Amino acid sequence: MFELDKRLQQDTCWLADLPLCRVLLMKDARYPWLILVPRVAEVSELFDLHDDQQQQLWDESRLVSQAMAKQFKADKMNLATLGNVVRQLHMHLVVRMEGDDSWPAPVWGRGTAVAYGADEQDAMREQMLQALTASGLEVQPA
Amino acid sequence: MFELDKRLQQDTCWLADLPLCRVLLMKDARYPWLILVPRVAEVSELFDLHDDQQQQLWDESRLVSQAMAKQFKADKMNLATLGNVVRQLHMHLVVRMEGDDSWPAPVWGRGTAVAYGADEQDAMREQMLQALTASGLEVQPA
Repeated sequence: MFELDKRLQQDTCWLADLPLCRVLLMKDARYPWLILVPRVAEVSELFDLHDDQQQQLWDESRLVSQAMAKQFKADKMNLATLGNVVRQLHMHLVVRMEGDDSWPAPVWGRGTAVAYGADEQDAMREQMLQALTASGLEVQPA
Repeated sequence: MFELDKRLQQDTCWLADLPLCRVLLMKDARYPWLILVPRVAEVSELFDLHDDQQQQLWDESRLVSQAMAKQFKADKMNLATLGNVVRQLHMHLVVRMEGDDSWPAPVWGRGTAVAYGADEQDAMREQMLQALTASGLEVQPA
């Protein structure tokens, strides 16, 4: 049974579900940042997924990444699955802008997350939902 | 025409070619670390590739990642395409071991690369070629 890791639960808010993945918004106003978590039990490496799930994870990652790039006019998209701290398989999709808080370094382990204001978070959710819809994937908002 | 970025040229050595990607060994003895670079001209984002190339990049990334995990008994595989410094599209595949030099942080921008000794580099090339062969992909050694 799928159960979201406690650390991910704490650091994100639930935005929507795609056919395979739960889509989480990272609570860090420094970057438009989504995390995709396949809704399957106890998987840590992408190649632990079945072949069709690996394929679906890739399709969801690349299509959402492309839609985020367009929505936010990204200078660069960063896409990564690391999992050294949180073992539950998850894919980071991060919009990077030249001159953002970590640029050009990766975002992980740099400084401290900046909380969204309530209105600001609502606006970001709205923009992200637009991007998800534009991806062409089937979207179930949370 | 495909031309390898100068920074990548400097930081890696050419190991082999897969159907789509050039496979480079990172000159950093701290981690077994490959970089896959699609042999296409001037592409920076994965979704700038044609659909069949995006598919091939994924297949090469996931199969090589799986083979590396097995070859080196990885505690975790890290897979990422960032490109904030080197714009040429490239995918990092990094074997992570608990207690390695950056564990559990990501490897980028942590400390300084440690050069391989000549014999050590030959041994690593050999192990990586074994992993590439085990991936089931068509491999052209450099």
